[in-house]
Amino acid sequence: MRILILGAAGMVGRKLTERLVKDGRLGREAITRLDLHDVVEPERPDAPFAVETMTSDFSMPGEAEKLVAGRPDVIFHLAAIVSGEAEADFDKGYRINLDGTRYLFDAVRVVGGGYKPRLVFTSSIAVFGAPFPDAIGDEFFLTPLTSYGAQKAIGELLLADYTRRGFFDGVGIRLPTICVRPGKPNKAASGFFSGIIREPLNGQEAILPVSTDVRHAHASPRSAVNFLIHAASMDTSKIGPRRSLTMPSVSVTVGEQIDALRRVAGDEAVARIRHDPDPAIIRIVEGWPRHFDARRAESLGFRAESSFDEIISIYIEDELGGVKPR
Amino acid sequence: MRILILGAAGMVGRKLTERLVKDGRLGREAITRLDLHDVVEPERPDAPFAVETMTSDFSMPGEAEKLVAGRPDVIFHLAAIVSGEAEADFDKGYRINLDGTRYLFDAVRVVGGGYKPRLVFTSSIAVFGAPFPDAIGDEFFLTPLTSYGAQKAIGELLLADYTRRGFFDGVGIRLPTICVRPGKPNKAASGFFSGIIREPLNGQEAILPVSTDVRHAHASPRSAVNFLIHAASMDTSKIGPRRSLTMPSVSVTVGEQIDALRRVAGDEAVARIRHDPDPAIIRIVEGWPRHFDARRAESLGFRAESSFDEIISIYIEDELGGVKPR
Repeated sequence: MRILILGAAGMVGRKLTERLVKDGRLGREAITRLDLHDVVEPERPDAPFAVETMTSDFSMPGEAEKLVAGRPDVIFHLAAIVSGEAEADFDKGYRINLDGTRYLFDAVRVVGGGYKPRLVFTSSIAVFGAPFPDAIGDEFFLTPLTSYGAQKAIGELLLADYTRRGFFDGVGIRLPTICVRPGKPNKAASGFFSGIIREPLNGQEAILPVSTDVRHAHASPRSAVNFLIHAASMDTSKIGPRRSLTMPSVSVTVGEQIDALRRVAGDEAVARIRHDPDPAIIRIVEGWPRHFDARRAESLGFRAESSFDEIISIYIEDELGGVKPR
Repeated sequence: MRILILGAAGMVGRKLTERLVKDGRLGREAITRLDLHDVVEPERPDAPFAVETMTSDFSMPGEAEKLVAGRPDVIFHLAAIVSGEAEADFDKGYRINLDGTRYLFDAVRVVGGGYKPRLVFTSSIAVFGAPFPDAIGDEFFLTPLTSYGAQKAIGELLLADYTRRGFFDGVGIRLPTICVRPGKPNKAASGFFSGIIREPLNGQEAILPVSTDVRHAHASPRSAVNFLIHAASMDTSKIGPRRSLTMPSVSVTVGEQIDALRRVAGDEAVARIRHDPDPAIIRIVEGWPRHFDARRAESLGFRAESSFDEIISIYIEDELGGVKPR
């Protein structure tokens, strides 16, 4: 089985690569080759199968054709300009997130000769826009309030139509906020959801810019990789024409996140969180969805964590070598 | 006020042109110039203001810029490849319905200098796909089951995002089936909804390919023009970020259509309908939406007919000079 990952240098792409290298297989099939693509050079892992790295801007005409020329059996399309940048640079967001996605889909379409790969597209809960019901179900309509969300919603429509026409076998997965993100704090408005766990566990101070009653939906990086692997290997005959699925997640308030941190790492860790309200972040977060009804994805076999304690434990296992720092 | 119509040679475009010429104004403002565009030469009406006709393929790079160079205050974007052709010719459907729409929106965006026209986009109930609830509300999600529907749904997402970003003031209107369509029978699967009224009123036989309990949603061509005019002149501050609206319609069964024909034109007209079931059309029609809850559009002042009798009467008034043929 040949696999292509677009966006392989990003956090989720790197973790997916690690997992594929470790497993040596996807579902029941042994991996024979892995192509890693990104706009910056992806790291090349030591693997028991052939690995190729490729660097290009896939939104340039002709580039996507090169990526699929090897007729990969599974394509993971994780490449995207993120929310903040797509809002700041209108042209770039549409060029990468819409044109790039369409070039990729069309490149697959024109290969011909019965070529019909599994194509896994990472969408986002940003396809939803306020006002929301208490729990957002799979039939709630898409009214994104950002250009990034609009581009992802358009990607979902293209994915469904190209799949319906038989050009590929597409599955879209709407990722919740991935938490706890490893690495340094970033400037994303959502960064504090990870920061208030990660920094205290690393003995550092964290800033909490919103109130403790803010509710949000989370899944671990490990779950994100599980979602991708399951989407790539599942029986798609049960999905029907609605090809994009809201992934399961743990919906908790910030207060419940902090309670979980206390249970896992004690009062000393919690004491490193400093509450410093930021009106700009409070306003942005108010427009975000809080809670999803993901029963369709669950009935199709997608699983996330069942508690925020578990999400913290996974961070400690996967990023801190299983050692709780005190 | 300067007005541009794309798709001016189509049935709705011609009726909109007639109405603007007759009124001489749109809302409270006098029309000073009307630009009529289509891929075939639109008819040039005698009008009390300047009229220009333009013929080009607006999906060719650079063409849309020419159309908006005169900075029209209102743009009616009615141009589209229809459902059947968009399904038969994948590339052409995406080129006109998606690329063409985006070129137009981008052409408006780059004019600059504070230019921010009202842009009315005709979407379609084809953005919805089965299975449906009994009445499809404004919050029902978009899962089109045709490429045409996917392209219209993408147009709605672009309209909302470009409006949110302040590039224009967009209103999308989802038209129900327009009935009674004037002219000759066509081969559209929906053609019989008009044919079983129009042909009997013109002394001709009509074929009914489905059972009389099939339910569908209709509005007259006159209502379609009213929707467009209202969308172009309404106060958009009340719409909010969800810029596309399902238009009001009359939901009736085919049997109720026939009962209305009997009331308006007698048994003799009804006797001209011949029931000849067509399994292909029956199957297509089963996937179509039947009934809408259009309360949001109604609360914003959009009005359709209140009965199918009224729809027939409008056909007789507008197309047959008010004379019921016997």
